[in-house]
Amino acid sequence: MIERVCIVGAGVIGSLYAGHLAQVCDVSVLTRRREHAEALAAEGLHVSGRSDLHAKVTASADPAALPPCDLAIVATKATGVEAAATALEGHFPGATVMTVQNGLGAEAIVRRHGDWPLISGVTFMSGTRHDDTHVEYILDTETWLGPYDRVAFERVQEAADLLVAAGLKAEALPDLRPAQWSKLIFNATVNAVAALTGLPHDAHFAALEQPSDLGHLVRDLVDEGKAVAAAAGIELHDDPWEMNVLATRRGSAHYPSMLEDVEAHRPTEIELITGSLVREGERLGVPVPLHTALYRLIKAKEAAWGEQGTSEPSERRQQ
Amino acid sequence: MIERVCIVGAGVIGSLYAGHLAQVCDVSVLTRRREHAEALAAEGLHVSGRSDLHAKVTASADPAALPPCDLAIVATKATGVEAAATALEGHFPGATVMTVQNGLGAEAIVRRHGDWPLISGVTFMSGTRHDDTHVEYILDTETWLGPYDRVAFERVQEAADLLVAAGLKAEALPDLRPAQWSKLIFNATVNAVAALTGLPHDAHFAALEQPSDLGHLVRDLVDEGKAVAAAAGIELHDDPWEMNVLATRRGSAHYPSMLEDVEAHRPTEIELITGSLVREGERLGVPVPLHTALYRLIKAKEAAWGEQGTSEPSERRQQ
Repeated sequence: MIERVCIVGAGVIGSLYAGHLAQVCDVSVLTRRREHAEALAAEGLHVSGRSDLHAKVTASADPAALPPCDLAIVATKATGVEAAATALEGHFPGATVMTVQNGLGAEAIVRRHGDWPLISGVTFMSGTRHDDTHVEYILDTETWLGPYDRVAFERVQEAADLLVAAGLKAEALPDLRPAQWSKLIFNATVNAVAALTGLPHDAHFAALEQPSDLGHLVRDLVDEGKAVAAAAGIELHDDPWEMNVLATRRGSAHYPSMLEDVEAHRPTEIELITGSLVREGERLGVPVPLHTALYRLIKAKEAAWGEQGTSEPSERRQQ
Repeated sequence: MIERVCIVGAGVIGSLYAGHLAQVCDVSVLTRRREHAEALAAEGLHVSGRSDLHAKVTASADPAALPPCDLAIVATKATGVEAAATALEGHFPGATVMTVQNGLGAEAIVRRHGDWPLISGVTFMSGTRHDDTHVEYILDTETWLGPYDRVAFERVQEAADLLVAAGLKAEALPDLRPAQWSKLIFNATVNAVAALTGLPHDAHFAALEQPSDLGHLVRDLVDEGKAVAAAAGIELHDDPWEMNVLATRRGSAHYPSMLEDVEAHRPTEIELITGSLVREGERLGVPVPLHTALYRLIKAKEAAWGEQGTSEPSERRQQ
């Protein structure tokens, strides 16, 4: 029985899990910032939007200060997994740990820090963070779970059932990789293109009328990803091009997180999303020149922020 | 003898030509905006930086109001050539017309509007526009000229000599295409990468140490361009990769005009630079997948500006 859950990382996704799960079990939250934990402990957590919830949670930036748990959900961004797993090391010996990051490789990072049973997850939920104690639930889409290693499928099913009992959409799959790869290819494509163009995920991503239309690039990127998946022996759960077309037909355009990161000049998840795909392509001998190009462009974009302000207006010239 | 020159378009490059040439011959300036012509007629033109000049010029937004000329230099951006050539149509019957745009195809646009002898030019000069009557001269690099059609090489030489007499660097070449293509490949690569990454033309463009380094992409883009040039029978005047490496070693980093355009949300020259290269690749059966990808990304970036403000903050979500 899963009766106590610890949510590691209280960003948008972590807060959505914490707020909902607190309705059906004891929830503790491990935060990175101490002020964040203090605010959650004092005010609780408010979820608006698709749900309207107020949750009481135990919170701390120190895992030793939290009660034991049966399930720990690492809900940080992909860029935060290493730090989160380091913080977890030596704690929660009885827990099953679940990852839900974009890209590939989060489970392996966690594994290097402990021998917990591991569940792989991917989530399509989205929301908007308003402040440390308030998150708005926007897309009430699914979380898919599958066994990574040292875990029985029954445990995975139990975790999925708990999410469903808490009012979320979830499904346990015997093998998560087909879904994980579908999302990987979709994200590597849509996030990088959005981050480079400044476009939210809108109709341009599916446009194929003119030779200059963006849909051609999106489809070529998806095709590169599918070739890597095929070489890895993965039969995709969903076709990423169809996911793209469907998503662009949803009323208002989704704002991919990598575009938000770029606009805020934050480090992006490029390394774990596109970087994973490029490295898998290399390992399997499948050429991925377009993903490699986007990977290098976004790495360079991140480098540009670090050096802003060094170029004086008088040095700005015309070519 | 070239005694009267008309400069068409008084942006940075046009103003640099006008300010210098006015020291050795009569200069008139055809502007797009009437206020610009009025300001130039009233205050003259000031060039600071590498030169310190004050020039008296005749200026108008109406070609019929300008005196006849022996040489007209179309110095607009590539995006302005069609409008400039339309304005020139039926005027200056005795003039030789010279183009100096980035990319390919400016001469053919001018040709559609008149049967003037045509000189092809490329310029590596750069500067900063301070206001309608003040431009700062930054890179005092060369202008190369060559015959396009209906013009004798002697006339090209005469135009180059005039530029040199005016204090500029210039050289007449029997065939400009090798230089034009070197600059085309260089610009298609450096401008597009700068516009997508936000980086000025700095050391990242030549970095080849890590697999994620931008120099690999830059080199692959240059190689695609060289394959197109080879198929077109062009022996390049300079190797664009070496131009890139040399330029990144110059003290302060150059700010490519396409990056400035992107930051100001102005239409870019992508269609005449990268677009030309992509179309030439297609015509000659040479694959240019990376330039095509950058072309689509920048076209999409331009599309994004047109639609800004339609996405409310509450619609911005996380994926």
